[in-house]
This record gives sequence, structure tokens and C-alpha cells, in this order.
Amino acid sequence: MEDLESEKYTVHDPCVTWLDENEVALRTREGHVLSYSLHSNITATLLDNSSLDLTYTKFHVSADKRFVLLTYNIQPIFSQSFTASYAIYNVAKGVLLELNPPAGEKALIQYAAWGLQGNQLAFVFEGDIYYQTEVSSKPLRLTATGREGLVVNGLSDWIYEEEVLLTYPANWWSKDGARLAYLTINNSATPLMEIPHFLGGVYPSNVFFPYPKAGSTIPTVSLFVVNLYGPAHTLEMIPPDSVRARDRYISMVTWISSTQLAVRWLNRAQNQSELCVCEATTGACSKEVPLFSSDGSWFYLTLPAKQGARGEFRHIASLPAQPAIPSVPPRFLTSGNWDVTVLCALDEDNRKIYFLSTEESRQSRHLYSADFEGIFQRQCLTCNLLDDCSFFKAVFSPNQTYFTLYCLGPGVPKVTVHNTKDPSSESGSPLGYIVLEDNTPLSETLEGKRLPETVFKTLAADNHDLHLKLSLPQGYEAHLLPLLIIVDGVPGSQSVTEEFTMGWPEVLASTHDMALAWVDGRSGVGRGQKISSVDPRKLSSLRVKDQLGVVEWLMQLPYIDDRRIALYGKAFGGYLSLKMLAATDQLFKCAAAVAPITDFKLYSAAFSERYLGLPAKEEHTYLTASVLEDVHKLKDENFLLLHGTADARVHFQHSAELLSRLVKVEANYSLQLYPDEGHILKERRSIQHSQRTLVHYLQTCLRHNPLLASIEEPDEDEEDD
Amino acid sequence: MEDLESEKYTVHDPCVTWLDENEVALRTREGHVLSYSLHSNITATLLDNSSLDLTYTKFHVSADKRFVLLTYNIQPIFSQSFTASYAIYNVAKGVLLELNPPAGEKALIQYAAWGLQGNQLAFVFEGDIYYQTEVSSKPLRLTATGREGLVVNGLSDWIYEEEVLLTYPANWWSKDGARLAYLTINNSATPLMEIPHFLGGVYPSNVFFPYPKAGSTIPTVSLFVVNLYGPAHTLEMIPPDSVRARDRYISMVTWISSTQLAVRWLNRAQNQSELCVCEATTGACSKEVPLFSSDGSWFYLTLPAKQGARGEFRHIASLPAQPAIPSVPPRFLTSGNWDVTVLCALDEDNRKIYFLSTEESRQSRHLYSADFEGIFQRQCLTCNLLDDCSFFKAVFSPNQTYFTLYCLGPGVPKVTVHNTKDPSSESGSPLGYIVLEDNTPLSETLEGKRLPETVFKTLAADNHDLHLKLSLPQGYEAHLLPLLIIVDGVPGSQSVTEEFTMGWPEVLASTHDMALAWVDGRSGVGRGQKISSVDPRKLSSLRVKDQLGVVEWLMQLPYIDDRRIALYGKAFGGYLSLKMLAATDQLFKCAAAVAPITDFKLYSAAFSERYLGLPAKEEHTYLTASVLEDVHKLKDENFLLLHGTADARVHFQHSAELLSRLVKVEANYSLQLYPDEGHILKERRSIQHSQRTLVHYLQTCLRHNPLLASIEEPDEDEEDD
Repeated sequence: MEDLESEKYTVHDPCVTWLDENEVALRTREGHVLSYSLHSNITATLLDNSSLDLTYTKFHVSADKRFVLLTYNIQPIFSQSFTASYAIYNVAKGVLLELNPPAGEKALIQYAAWGLQGNQLAFVFEGDIYYQTEVSSKPLRLTATGREGLVVNGLSDWIYEEEVLLTYPANWWSKDGARLAYLTINNSATPLMEIPHFLGGVYPSNVFFPYPKAGSTIPTVSLFVVNLYGPAHTLEMIPPDSVRARDRYISMVTWISSTQLAVRWLNRAQNQSELCVCEATTGACSKEVPLFSSDGSWFYLTLPAKQGARGEFRHIASLPAQPAIPSVPPRFLTSGNWDVTVLCALDEDNRKIYFLSTEESRQSRHLYSADFEGIFQRQCLTCNLLDDCSFFKAVFSPNQTYFTLYCLGPGVPKVTVHNTKDPSSESGSPLGYIVLEDNTPLSETLEGKRLPETVFKTLAADNHDLHLKLSLPQGYEAHLLPLLIIVDGVPGSQSVTEEFTMGWPEVLASTHDMALAWVDGRSGVGRGQKISSVDPRKLSSLRVKDQLGVVEWLMQLPYIDDRRIALYGKAFGGYLSLKMLAATDQLFKCAAAVAPITDFKLYSAAFSERYLGLPAKEEHTYLTASVLEDVHKLKDENFLLLHGTADARVHFQHSAELLSRLVKVEANYSLQLYPDEGHILKERRSIQHSQRTLVHYLQTCLRHNPLLASIEEPDEDEEDD
Repeated sequence: MEDLESEKYTVHDPCVTWLDENEVALRTREGHVLSYSLHSNITATLLDNSSLDLTYTKFHVSADKRFVLLTYNIQPIFSQSFTASYAIYNVAKGVLLELNPPAGEKALIQYAAWGLQGNQLAFVFEGDIYYQTEVSSKPLRLTATGREGLVVNGLSDWIYEEEVLLTYPANWWSKDGARLAYLTINNSATPLMEIPHFLGGVYPSNVFFPYPKAGSTIPTVSLFVVNLYGPAHTLEMIPPDSVRARDRYISMVTWISSTQLAVRWLNRAQNQSELCVCEATTGACSKEVPLFSSDGSWFYLTLPAKQGARGEFRHIASLPAQPAIPSVPPRFLTSGNWDVTVLCALDEDNRKIYFLSTEESRQSRHLYSADFEGIFQRQCLTCNLLDDCSFFKAVFSPNQTYFTLYCLGPGVPKVTVHNTKDPSSESGSPLGYIVLEDNTPLSETLEGKRLPETVFKTLAADNHDLHLKLSLPQGYEAHLLPLLIIVDGVPGSQSVTEEFTMGWPEVLASTHDMALAWVDGRSGVGRGQKISSVDPRKLSSLRVKDQLGVVEWLMQLPYIDDRRIALYGKAFGGYLSLKMLAATDQLFKCAAAVAPITDFKLYSAAFSERYLGLPAKEEHTYLTASVLEDVHKLKDENFLLLHGTADARVHFQHSAELLSRLVKVEANYSLQLYPDEGHILKERRSIQHSQRTLVHYLQTCLRHNPLLASIEEPDEDEEDD
């Protein structure tokens, strides 16, 4: 565990960004920001960290490369949002200027970012958006509706950040820098959640923020576009009829031309989505238009497509851009028993589309190109490209001359830049690829270490597949191993991948001779599932059933000690772990549940209602899904609860309700609290403590004790009656 | 433990009250309220529980015995305060009437009580006092300053209930029923404490109440007297000059004649008190007047008196009532190396005063009489009076013809009534005593049970004595016993007494063969201490030293296993336990701290400032007293923390601050939370769970494990380096 906490075991992210077709910006391990020209092979220093007084954490280079926006003193709020201080570094002059809110106010800027042209920039302050045509110009206030904590323009509130958009910024620049689209999220009618804060003051200072729980008022959302060149004027994009007068979410906004936006609206139940094209000049939106755009008349996007008996998989489809032709069926460019996971780039000159897919294997992500004419010929760009790399992410240069390739696993992560025309050309050759970061220090650290082996398995269940990843200590076949099952199972998530990980579970596998298993349930991404045939109301019970099916299979493995199996899960995974404990009778030696959801009534409207419906209508569904009703079944199980008392996502209230009931049934549990910590622990010491607590708890519970084993024998017999 | 939770193990309190000179009211085990005439030996039913629809919890008979005030649906607030519903039972008519707030409001009455004449009564509603001349008359509003939660008339706020008056009611009737004195406590400027409440709702609903922490604004307090006969008029009693313009407390109010009140004012630092006589007719108060009064010219009270080398003890003193003669020194009626603990009654006709004292032994409380003339001849009324009884409480009839005697231990508690002239006259004889409750079911339950033996010890420390009580399993001398030390040590408290107790510690002694020790520190009541020579700023460190001195002595006992010693303490006791752990190096196997105070800055102004001064001036004192600074010394100690998250006295904040630091040093502790529970657990299940948790934790930690003992041997050697 000490090793894990040391610098040597960290992966360095060089934060590569494309400056133009031939140039990237990146950050060195020492914190210098460099520009690197791929043509000339020349490196220039944009910003020398040693000449700065502040320890910045993020950097962004302006479109004209003349300025660097530095973000420092970052204080996380939720999973992505943060408060911070901002400063602008003038590369030519070597001068640093603070970016201050207007009128010298004390409060912090909520967010700041460059536009896509010159050094135009926008920032959000007290819920309103401000715009500067350039660094030296005065900020222009674009909105006036901001009300602290209640109405925000251009940024996500809690539910948009965590459940809907999944990003903190909620504003989008048109490519020509002439327009800015932004959401206005109004929480005036949303109930406030109060999070206790115990530490640091003589009196506790609690924090309030709008958090719509299942069944309660959700924020209203509107999409505006403001014209930035010439006198600023603002237009609201009109939602389609189907969601206009109802509770709705906006789950996606993207510019498809300099005056057109593609927008996805969702009804509150999240079972109907409307993809529209909005005219930024008029605010008119017409529906039935897809996501990804060429400059011409067709859009490209991924859509589920039925692939024989194996169910639906996501494939690339093209649709006409003209909303006037609504009845044209989508034309699929790809097909097969695998998913397209990300569309990366469209090269119109060469009539090619670039994407990541699971064609090679469900747990891998390789970069492919496909022609979007003729027989849609497909080519794998990354297969056998780099040693020990099969899980990739790619970012293309503006005109697709190059792409940055992030090898995320299974080996130590690397970042390289490749020529799109000949990506496999060896490093050193004229067109050869360039290594920006290969994490040599980490590789050297891991050399000779007894790292676990990874094995992937696919199990056939009723009419779908279950996928699992096993992490096994070296020489595992010679022993009877204890097993830790890492339960995730959030619908749509996939934990069975080849992504490199180095955390406390790997410590258990490598130094405590433990087998680890990750299980993906149904309707995961990756390989498709027949999700349409599953009643979402049953998702919770089906997921428990799936997971238990896998457990049964794992117990048959010759090297697994079926009397020493433990569970671990966080949030929804914590929920599933507790449900699995409750559904079985001491099948598991123990379980660790971190910040478990215990009652979906107490959880966010966007998540709970998506899977369970409205609580007023689905009282019984909510009741049976709750862990709180299962406490009598948890009574004799052995488990550990961990929770941060300031968790803004799964409120400490979930654990409090559970504890209160566990006390009543005299259940056998351990408890660990992190005062004032959130869903993601913030303090280094809290993180270390939680990891050590988990490792110690699981290792103790799964320890082979021959003495205890023989003592326990009679107990086992007693269980029969 | 199951036994302990059963009905059979409970002590029944018959709630005996004097109705007049020859008659008491009492409640049977079945809930009937009876009157019992001592002259005629006739029992009459005032209220037949079976004829009532409600389960009342308290009853009070009106002065004219025509009505019974019933209190039901009692919901505790702090240690004594509660919300409840009230009803008045008409004894003659057998009719029950609800006592409702004025104007049919929905809110609950905060408190209601009979006056001292007829069936006059007063109640408090929304912070204001209302008066009814009789049950059938309309309520008259006496005050109009009440503001919910901020200004209250006639009742204590948190700090008066828990730290100053120590009672919920803060109103006092003059004996003739003509006047009512009451406090007005104004918390408008006191900071509010917020207590999180997690359970039961979709959104948590927190509770605010004024709670002055060390150094913050304390409530203002005023004493008023309202004239009830004729047109109501109200006068404020004017505080003495010394506290008039300063922060102050009123710690005692008592009527000494029909128009005179004795009042004790305290300065904020609580190192100067002013005892005054206030004229209710004018509001004028003159100081230097004692507590207890005859109708004539002398007052009686207890005052500390120096008794040779053993320090000061509290003895009965008389002082002239006329404030005009301030220079007369007190005349002491008693003397010796023991304390008068309670003045019970003054019989002016027979020139006798009745009191409880520790003359027989420090751990006992016997009832004595003393002449208050001549040589002040003293007589013990209860010595050898009842078998297995040496810890008494007494309540005299209005003219001292009888007294109710509460035998509180060491045997099973009893309630008897005795003739004052001949208290030892046997039951059954003409003047013989009457048994109102002897708890026969409990005695029978305990018969043949292996109850622990009790041993008292006094140890001489530097210039004071330390007292302890040992509870030892039968046949203790034959074994090497583990030891649990129950730490209390609140200044002024005494836990080393002969009072009967039957709780989870006794379970440990009787069924788990554990020795128990209670230790009183210096300046306890009972036997006096040279407290004047102790700097109060050192109280915390001296107390730790005292306790550790006792531990050293206990470890020498031949039947104590000095490697198996544990600590238990709650609130201040929890604080001391943690301090003792921190001051030693694995001397204790483990400790259980319930709702420990961890930082006096976070604790109530009245308590913290009394012992440590103002935090602004005594920063260092607060810092060294805090447990938070000791976490690195707690790192390798083994302890259990228990806390109710809604604790209004020692806020959960105390544990949160401690936990946050324990996480940082990777300390070895266990945690148990009771969501929404207060300082005194309310839910039966929570109480059971906490007791079982404590018993299980302490028993496991102190268990003799020959295997572990031998494994631990090498560790002991390692500790040396």
C-alpha cells in the first residue's frame, strides 16, 4: 500500500492538446508547458513553471497561441466542477495577469475558457456569463438571470454535471467563434439538499444546493445562443412540442455548422428523446436529426442496430441533414456483433470516418477507419501497433493529418502522435510516430514486480452474455485462492476492459494472493444486449440475479476457495453488494459497501426515475428495490460501510437510514466515516485511510485460518436447519 | 443482557408526593393513582388507569386534591425537557378534560403545572406563561415576550436546563399561591447550533436551537415576579451591581417568605456568586443572604468549612436574615470530616433541622436531625433502620410529621413512610413505618443470582484523598481478573456511592468475570477537598493524573490482571478516557468513549468557561485540554467511539473533528453511530444496541486468550525500544 501511495506508481498525463494541424501543446513532468511542432520537430517553451509563483494545475493555450490560461487553487465541488483562481500568461511578454471578476468583487470566478478564435474568452461569475473579445478588452456581461446557487448560465448544476450532460461547462462555441450556445438551468423550485459540514468551525456550517430527488421538482432548462460579433443579441432555441410544456432535460448540444446546433431533448421519464437541429439565427428547432455532421448533407452518428440473435449493437449510421426528408431510413456503415463506442473524426477530403470499436474484443478499444462510400471498407489503425496496448483513445488534429493516441492499457499507459496516413510507421522513420510520454519511471518501478495476470471470460446467460475479468496472482493454479468480486453494475457502465489500473485491488491480488473478479451486467456498453426485452422496473433484481449467476460459476473454478468470497462496491455497486448479501445466506464471507445507495427515493430524480419511474406511481418498485427493507436479511452477514458525511451524490442520509435499521436488528457490521468528505474523497489522508481500511478489512475477512476453518465446520452443519 | 432488558429487572418508582400532612399520592405498578392516608390507613383511588383511554406517564394532584394533571405522549427534548400532551382528570366527576393551548392553536403546550393553592395552574405556550385561577377559568396571558426558540418565559433553555438551573421549569410559586416568579431567557443574540436529522424524510430536516459555545454570546436572563391575586402586575428583580451590566447567570431562585425571594446570581466566569434577597413587591435585591429559611430572622444553608488538614467540607451554617447586619460571621451547626449533602426540612416548633450527610461513610447518605440550639445535638434517623439500606433520600410532609424515605441502595430500592418522631418504630406497630414499594419482583429475580461484591477504598494522594468503588465477581480472589475502569470525573460529581445499580457493567462483572472500578477524582462532593488550592486551569491534567494514580494502585491488586485493563467513559468521562489513553503507552487494552468531549471550544460556554476561562484569553489552556491535539498519541491505542448524530449536548461535531484527525494518523479505532439519537439514547433498540456493543467490545478486548498472550510476549519487548 505504501508503494501505491508513492510518486513512482503514478501515471503522468501530459495533457496533450492540438494547437493546429502540425503542433501540440503538452505539459512535462516538471510542469513546463511546451509546444511541439511535428513538421520541424522543434520544441518551444510556452511557459516555464520555474518562473511562476503559483502552482497551477491546468493550462489551456489560446487559439492564437499567444496566451496560456492557468487554473490554480482548484477546489473540487462535485465530480468535475471546482472553484479556482485563473491567470493569463502572455507568452511573448512573459507576463502573468490575474483574471479577476468584474468590478473587483471578492467572489471567485466559477469557470473560464478560451473561445475558438484569437484570444476571445468567456467566464462565468455569480451565475452569469461574461465575454471578452480579447484578453485586453473589458468583459461584456452576456446574461443577467444568474442567481447564486439557483439559476446558472453556461454551467451545469449538480444533476446536469452528474446525471445528464456529465460535464461541468454547459456552453458551446461555434467553430468560427461568432456564437456561444449555453444552457440556463433554473433551480428556483428545486428542493435544496443540506449537507452537514462538521469540521473547522466552532459552529458547523452546512451547505445547501439544489438536488432533485426522485419525484421532486427538477430544474427547468433552456438553451440560448448569443451572437458575439457585433452587438450581442440572444435567442432561445425552442424545444420541440413533445417536451415543450413538460419537465425535460437537455442531454446533448453540439454545433453542426456555424449557425446550426444539434440538440437532444429528453422527457422526464427519459424514455423518449428528441434529436433536433436548431437554427441559431431564428431559434427554430426541427426534430429527427442526428449527431455527427459533415459539412454537406449527411450526418453520422451511432445507433443501435439489431445483429441477429445476439441482440442490438451500436453502429455508425448516416442520415440526411435536411429535416425536410424525415422518412429516409438510416444507412449503416458498420455491422457485426460489436459496438462502435466513439466517433473520433470525419475526413471529408478522403471520405473516411474514424472511430473506436470493440470489434477486436469486447474489452479492447481499437481505432478504426471506414470509408463512407462504396463497401465501407474498414481498417484497424491500432491493431498490433504498440506493444501491450489494446485499449485506446484518440484525438485528431483539426484536419486529421495527425492523431494523438492514448494507449490506456493493458500495459503501462503511453501517449504518442501518429500520422493518419501511415500510423504504423516506426518511430524514427520520416513519417514515424512520436512518443510524448511513455511513463518509463512507472515501467521501471513495475519491472520484476509480481503483478497479477488478467483473464477475460464470457458466460452465456438466458438470452444474453455476461462478461467478466479475473485478476489472478502469478502461479494461481497451484493454490486455493480467496476471491474478491468488484461489483459495479451501473446500467451502461463497463468495468471489464483492458484499461490499465493500479489501485488497492491490485495490491490484494499481488501481495495478498487474492483473486479479483469484475463483472459487467446486462445492457453494458461494449457488446450489445437485448435490452429492449427487459422491463426496466426489474433491472435491480435482474442485476442481482446476473451477478449471483457469475458467482456460482466462479465458485466452480478449481483455484477458487468457495468459502472465502467477498464483495466490494461503491454507490450503485455498494447497493448491489448489499442486495447480493441479502439475497444469499452467508455465501459471502464479507462485503465492503462504499457510499451505498440504500433507497432510490433518496437518490437523484434523473437516475432513479430513469430506471424505476416516478415514486408516486411506482411505490412498490421503490420499496422492493430499497436495501432498507432487507435489513433482517443482512442481520447475520458481515459487512463494512464507508461513507463521507458530505457526500453530495449519495447523501450520508442513505447510510444513516440503513444504520438506524441495522441497529434495530442488531446486525453485525463495521463502520467507517469520513467527516466532511464527499463522494470522491478529497484529502490525501482520507483516500489512503479508506484504501488501507478496505485492504485490511477484506484481507482479514478472507484470510485462511486453518484453526477457524475447523472450528467453523460445525457451524456450517447448523446452518442447514 | 437479555435479562437486563426484561421487565423483571426494572425498579418501580411509585412517584410518592405529599398531598397534605397525613396523606400521600402514589402510583401503583398497574398505573392507578391512589391516595393513602397515614392516619386512617385508608387507600382511595384518585384515578383508575383502566378507565382512561390514554397511557399517561406522569401525574400531579392539585393542591385541593380535586384534580389530577396527566402528562402523556412525552417526547424528550434534552435531558429533562419534553413536549407532551396534558389532560386534567376531575376526581369527583371521573371526567377527563384535555388541556389545550389558547385559541385552539395546533401547537403543543410546552409545560403545565399546578400552583400551590386550590387548583390554580400555569402553563407555557409558545414561550409565554398563561395562568388559570382554577381549572374551569379562562387562561390569562402573563407574558408577551415569548419568541419561539429564542425567548422563553418560565422555562429553561438548553444551557439553563443542562448547566445552570439543571431543571426544565424556571418558575417558582410563592407558598400562598399569590405570586409566580419566573425567568425570561433571551437567546436572540446566541448563535444557533444546527443538529442534523437524517431519518424519515426524502430531504433531511435539521433542527436549530440556541447553544452558546465557549466564548460566544450567552443568553440574557431576567427574573420577574407576577402578582396573581387581583390585577396581574409584573416586576423585574434588579440584579446586584456586580453583575448588572455584565454577562450573568441566575443559578438559584427560591421563595423565603410570601414576598421575599432568595436568588443566586453568577458572573459569566462563574467564579463570583451573589446570593441576594429580593423584595417581590419592589424588585429591590440586597446581597449576602443565604438559601434556607426559617420564618424568623435566621437562614440556614450549607457552606464550605475548613476541617483541619483534610480540607474543606460542607456544613450547616446559619446567618441572620436581615441584610442590615452583613458582618455577622456564619454560625456552624455541624462540623467534622464529612459533608452535609442536602438540607431536607426545618422543624421550627421542635427547633430541629433535617439533612442528609456522609458522616457514616463517604459513599453513604443517611438522614440526620440536629437541634439548632444548644450544643446542636445530632441524631442519625436512618442508621440501621432498614436492611441493606445506607443510601437515602427523604421528602418530608409539609409540617414534618412524616417523611417519605427512599432507600436507593446498596440493596434493592424501597420506598417507605416514617413518623418523624419515631422513625425506627417497626412496621405494624402504632407509629410503625409503612412500605409503599419494596420491589419484591426485582428482589425475587435477583435471588440466587451471582451478583458482584462491592468494595470501597480510599487512597491518599498528594494532599487529598481518592475514592473508589470496586465491583468484583464472587470468588474473585481465586482468579486473575480483567478490569474495567468506569471513568466519570465531571467536577462535582460522585460515582463512588452505595446507590443500587443494575446495568451493563454489572453484566460484565457477574457473567463475564470482570472487575469494575469507579473512581472519584478530586473536588467531588461527599468528602471535601482542598479545592481552593487547585488551579482550575489544571483540572483536566490533574484529573488524568489522579485517575492514572488509581490505575497504578489497582494494577497492584493480587487478583487484577494488569495486562487486561479497559476504560469506559461518556461525555466528560469519554474525554478523560481518551486523555488517559493518550497519556500512556498501551497500558490499557482498549477504551470505549461514548459521545466524548474532544475540544472544549466546541462545548457549552457555561461548562467550558467555568473550568477553562474564556477561549480568547486561554487559548493555550483550551489547546492542551483538547483531545484533538493528542491524536498521534492515540494512533496505536485501541478504542471504540459511540455517538448519536443528533446529540444536543456533546455535538457529533466533537467526534467528527476527532475522526477527521484519526483518519490522518491511521489510528486503530472502531466506530458506532446512532443516527438521529441524542446524548441520551431514546429508542429502546438503540439503547439495547449500544449496551450490547459496549459489552461485546469490552468483553472481546479483555478476553483471556492464552494463545494470544504468548504471541504478544515478544511485542512487549519490542515496545522497549
